[in-house]
Amino acid sequence: MRPLGIGLVGTGYMGKAHAVALQSVGAVFNTRFRPVCEMICSTTAEGAACKAIELGFKSSSGHWQDLIANPRVEALVIASPPTTHREIALAAFAAGKAVFCEKPLGSSLEDARAMADMAAASKLPNMVGFNYIRAPAVQLAREMILSGEIGEIIHVRAEHTEDFLADPQAPASWRTRDVSSGNLGDLSPHIINAMLRLAGPIERVVAQMQTVYSTRPGANGPEAVRNDDQADFLCRFKSGAIGAITVSRVATGSKLRYCFDIAGTKGALRFDAEDQNTLQYYDAGLKPGRQGFSKLLTAPEHPDYGAFCEGPGHGTGYSAQIVIEARDFLRAIETHEAISPTFEDGLQVSRIVAAISRSHTEERWVRIAEF
Amino acid sequence: MRPLGIGLVGTGYMGKAHAVALQSVGAVFNTRFRPVCEMICSTTAEGAACKAIELGFKSSSGHWQDLIANPRVEALVIASPPTTHREIALAAFAAGKAVFCEKPLGSSLEDARAMADMAAASKLPNMVGFNYIRAPAVQLAREMILSGEIGEIIHVRAEHTEDFLADPQAPASWRTRDVSSGNLGDLSPHIINAMLRLAGPIERVVAQMQTVYSTRPGANGPEAVRNDDQADFLCRFKSGAIGAITVSRVATGSKLRYCFDIAGTKGALRFDAEDQNTLQYYDAGLKPGRQGFSKLLTAPEHPDYGAFCEGPGHGTGYSAQIVIEARDFLRAIETHEAISPTFEDGLQVSRIVAAISRSHTEERWVRIAEF
Amino acid sequence: MRPLGIGLVGTGYMGKAHAVALQSVGAVFNTRFRPVCEMICSTTAEGAACKAIELGFKSSSGHWQDLIANPRVEALVIASPPTTHREIALAAFAAGKAVFCEKPLGSSLEDARAMADMAAASKLPNMVGFNYIRAPAVQLAREMILSGEIGEIIHVRAEHTEDFLADPQAPASWRTRDVSSGNLGDLSPHIINAMLRLAGPIERVVAQMQTVYSTRPGANGPEAVRNDDQADFLCRFKSGAIGAITVSRVATGSKLRYCFDIAGTKGALRFDAEDQNTLQYYDAGLKPGRQGFSKLLTAPEHPDYGAFCEGPGHGTGYSAQIVIEARDFLRAIETHEAISPTFEDGLQVSRIVAAISRSHTEERWVRIAEF
Amino acid sequence: MRPLGIGLVGTGYMGKAHAVALQSVGAVFNTRFRPVCEMICSTTAEGAACKAIELGFKSSSGHWQDLIANPRVEALVIASPPTTHREIALAAFAAGKAVFCEKPLGSSLEDARAMADMAAASKLPNMVGFNYIRAPAVQLAREMILSGEIGEIIHVRAEHTEDFLADPQAPASWRTRDVSSGNLGDLSPHIINAMLRLAGPIERVVAQMQTVYSTRPGANGPEAVRNDDQADFLCRFKSGAIGAITVSRVATGSKLRYCFDIAGTKGALRFDAEDQNTLQYYDAGLKPGRQGFSKLLTAPEHPDYGAFCEGPGHGTGYSAQIVIEARDFLRAIETHEAISPTFEDGLQVSRIVAAISRSHTEERWVRIAEF
Repeated sequence: MRPLGIGLVGTGYMGKAHAVALQSVGAVFNTRFRPVCEMICSTTAEGAACKAIELGFKSSSGHWQDLIANPRVEALVIASPPTTHREIALAAFAAGKAVFCEKPLGSSLEDARAMADMAAASKLPNMVGFNYIRAPAVQLAREMILSGEIGEIIHVRAEHTEDFLADPQAPASWRTRDVSSGNLGDLSPHIINAMLRLAGPIERVVAQMQTVYSTRPGANGPEAVRNDDQADFLCRFKSGAIGAITVSRVATGSKLRYCFDIAGTKGALRFDAEDQNTLQYYDAGLKPGRQGFSKLLTAPEHPDYGAFCEGPGHGTGYSAQIVIEARDFLRAIETHEAISPTFEDGLQVSRIVAAISRSHTEERWVRIAEF
Repeated sequence: MRPLGIGLVGTGYMGKAHAVALQSVGAVFNTRFRPVCEMICSTTAEGAACKAIELGFKSSSGHWQDLIANPRVEALVIASPPTTHREIALAAFAAGKAVFCEKPLGSSLEDARAMADMAAASKLPNMVGFNYIRAPAVQLAREMILSGEIGEIIHVRAEHTEDFLADPQAPASWRTRDVSSGNLGDLSPHIINAMLRLAGPIERVVAQMQTVYSTRPGANGPEAVRNDDQADFLCRFKSGAIGAITVSRVATGSKLRYCFDIAGTKGALRFDAEDQNTLQYYDAGLKPGRQGFSKLLTAPEHPDYGAFCEGPGHGTGYSAQIVIEARDFLRAIETHEAISPTFEDGLQVSRIVAAISRSHTEERWVRIAEF
Repeated sequence: MRPLGIGLVGTGYMGKAHAVALQSVGAVFNTRFRPVCEMICSTTAEGAACKAIELGFKSSSGHWQDLIANPRVEALVIASPPTTHREIALAAFAAGKAVFCEKPLGSSLEDARAMADMAAASKLPNMVGFNYIRAPAVQLAREMILSGEIGEIIHVRAEHTEDFLADPQAPASWRTRDVSSGNLGDLSPHIINAMLRLAGPIERVVAQMQTVYSTRPGANGPEAVRNDDQADFLCRFKSGAIGAITVSRVATGSKLRYCFDIAGTKGALRFDAEDQNTLQYYDAGLKPGRQGFSKLLTAPEHPDYGAFCEGPGHGTGYSAQIVIEARDFLRAIETHEAISPTFEDGLQVSRIVAAISRSHTEERWVRIAEF
Repeated sequence: MRPLGIGLVGTGYMGKAHAVALQSVGAVFNTRFRPVCEMICSTTAEGAACKAIELGFKSSSGHWQDLIANPRVEALVIASPPTTHREIALAAFAAGKAVFCEKPLGSSLEDARAMADMAAASKLPNMVGFNYIRAPAVQLAREMILSGEIGEIIHVRAEHTEDFLADPQAPASWRTRDVSSGNLGDLSPHIINAMLRLAGPIERVVAQMQTVYSTRPGANGPEAVRNDDQADFLCRFKSGAIGAITVSRVATGSKLRYCFDIAGTKGALRFDAEDQNTLQYYDAGLKPGRQGFSKLLTAPEHPDYGAFCEGPGHGTGYSAQIVIEARDFLRAIETHEAISPTFEDGLQVSRIVAAISRSHTEERWVRIAEF
């Protein structure tokens, strides 16, 4: 067992999720590398000190540079806003540290490219936080696709819709100001990453985007919304499969409708993160009259489930995804192997995001190769 | 109570469905006009005679012209292949008969336009068989949308997928030979009609289509498939709403996934014909923590349900849709009012089908106004 | 094709349902015997005359004796209140007519016994209207059980709950006055019949019953409710299987929760009439990690579905159950074979109802053999 | 922030679950008392030493007495077999330590009574591990019931079925040897506890139990199964409500069907742990035609959800229940308030288990007051 000093930048929603995961990952997976929560960074020194106590870190700072300068911090988890990712990650790599970065990878395609390039050049372990792909049922989907159980994929229908801005009176915030925090910038990377992982590279897209509510209540009256609320796009995969994907932050009633329907030549899979412990599986090889979508409840025989619970159907949640992510990051550090999603994978997602945006603006099909 | 002589052309799947509906519609809805099954037409005189006995018609013929010439036939139901629709319908109008025509309206946009023009000129009752729109839960969806219960529609996600040709070994047939019988020609009109009915006119589309299995077993070895297997398209509605729609006849596992998710500013609706007695409704106006998609089971307080059964949740099926259709056709004849979907409505669907096809060929957004 | 004159007693909910079914059954199933709607009986001559026109009968009467005296009436459908069943059925058998009687079979165990005895003695075709057993998915369940697909049944959990009297302000009516119209008398026979049909004879029961709302608004103030609102019972089947069943007319939110979970040694089945086009099937023989309840959507390869629709998943409803029932009654008349549920089957249900009632009163396990 | 030394007895399924929970509860809930994993006990000293490293404990022992003797162990978590509970708990209380004990509370009613008595006498914090009650959706159910949202409870239908012994070839094990490890002893306490918590005290029961597979493969051929496989019971609550409950370890296809349907005078609730992030809610007060079971996805506005994730619908799993349990245990220690389920609550469950067992043996209704 080898302790591994971790620095965490960011103490919001995702910062806390990572702190919790770092504290339980060792016992859950009996990992050889054991995270030691060394130093945490928040926007102020006081805030950081407070969070260090709450989240169980040994020391704290109001400056991320202090984490990088700290020799006991061997790996950095970046959970601060996208606009900060690039600078922090580059400095971390320069200091020889492994880096885990929350999605999206930076606030622009340029950021993502710079970060992926530096990661490759540094040969240091790196990973992007597309956590949903680690839900056991999504891992199972990948396993079944790779094993050929549904034959060749012919069609994909997917969605990532949440309704956190469905109310027109929801106020303007960081979510409505920066392109990288909009619907396309913030939500779409999750489902795009899933599609790349499950169905392979995308060749071209055609998209439509929309800002449904053009202003939102601000501190001084209505404030203009500077990014999109919803987007649809068609895509063609390199394999020849085609698909249609919808992403929205204003889809009334959707809470975490990160879902996909994948049709193959021999079967089909359906997943919806609102019921993340189920993968629906249609096996076209069963006898006529006995075919139907089967509700596979996650169980110890499925990927990464058994470490959380020995009972089938007992369920894992969002937190478990982050713990699995932590295990994978530790494993990447231990083995020096690239474990997806790496920064390179994050860059591929960013290229597609850029293509969707251009397709919308220029009202045409756009090849990913343009980026 | 007034008897109304009906002629039926076609004795296949839909012909039988209409025959059954004609015989029960009077008792179900206590209609003033009561259908009398006068004459039935099949491809041969012998076949027709046989079907007349089976399906309860007084007389029969191997020529549709005989039905039109029969003065006791006051209204014609056309359930023969799309390529025959135009000629029969035009002759029927010319003879002053009301016409109900199965979807799609003819085998091309030209057919649809000629039929709609003649229907308008004749001022005779006319209707197209987009039956799914008449399922009580779909009617309820429309009622709720019109009443403003979900506010303004901002997004539509819809699908009409079935898997009747998902098996690559399914043989070539009429379904794989004519454009009007392909996936776009045959399946898409249903869901397009639903979208027009529920979300209003469409302004433009961008589409991708695909023939997944380019040949299928024929009488003398592999036979080329001459139409599409699957299609996706994005659309923009006149109202400003946007949407994404998928249509497939090779979507493994889908049986009648005629489904839609409609997000409005105040709520949302979800429907799937595989569970046609349910409409899912999300009311954003309920108090926090008590909001969720509610499973509205069709009941006597919903449109057209009570005539079939006084008990809520007891369910109606495909047959009931055809009975409701028959009631509407009788009502159109009785009242001389246009009851949707008329031939004009069918033409609007055909224009969109044509736009989708062109969008695919020319790989660009196509305005419906081009047609 | 042979016409068969039918007399119908009762023009309410079930009377109409049978009238509609009689008019479409011939075309749906291409039956050799074709029902001719000869004579209908309602409580008044005027009402009956009116219903004859509405429901398509040739003649009418305010006295059921007239139907029995009518030589053109070859078979009688009894859809009048339970208290009238015995007298009418006995007279019909005496006149040599086939009899279909709505459930429950008379208003008491004595009625049921007298009716079953007379049916047996007469050797005339007879049937009881436990319609839900004829839903294609329920027929499929029986087919799968008989074929051994789920092995031996070890446990049954079932329910028939509706909420038509869940509102304490729902007024007193015939439903609250007679024992045979109470929750146990009126609802339980359906699910008991299903259990007998699917899991075999029951040996003993222990029950608890309750009148939740002891009075209901009547014409002159509160009126006492004279029958039960809800009941639970445990049962032991002759096969050794055990089970627990709940029946309620006050189960808030249940519309037609006629449902069962049947666990066998090799698999399991689940059905809920609120989604009557689905049978859920768990096959314990599938490989680990790929086992799950599979949603079998009714389709042409399942019992009696294809006559209604050639498309899988297109759905049948309550009306189809009545049409299938009519087909079975015609077949029983044509073949002189007993087709379940016969009056004898109805009697077995009544014996269990009586045992449940006694178990409740005497607060003990009761053997069915006591009756 | 105050560190609190914990000793853990047992390193199996539940031991690990508690170890993980102890390590994350502080960061998740920002608790004032922070668990320090002091000492762990397994059946051998070597095993314990190994587990201490894996699960993050400071020291270890092969004797539970060492944990009790350790002054740094302020609270004990007992996750060893039921037959060991009594002795350990009593010794712990005698040493002045707070005790958390896994369910069932000892291996007999006598054990439970002795433990509850000692807990009461000691006035030390105590708790039983009925974890499912802490799933946020179950907590929400309780909150809604207490607030009167569904009115008065009139009926309960519940189940705890799993299929871990559904295969007749599953070998004999500790699960098949001791009464406290049988279906009634091991599984039923969970759902009985839930019913007591949600619907209040039970007055009497009538039950049937069954050992479906009387022998199972043992080391030397077939070995007799000494406890039950499945049980059904009816119950009457003190409130007047009635119910039916099924418990099984051989219910083919059930994985964690810990479910309940609770009907009240104003609404109803349905829960199934196989989809633990959903509570279905029927509000009879909504307007006609808009009533239906609503799928409430757990969210930050529901009990204890927000600490795990700020996003609604993102889901919590089995692990979160154990973390919530740990928080409650810490809170009980901090506040000296009894937090349910206490040992006294565990005793109430054991009384009902005893009554069910007697009811089965004596084939009669049994009042809980007999115990």
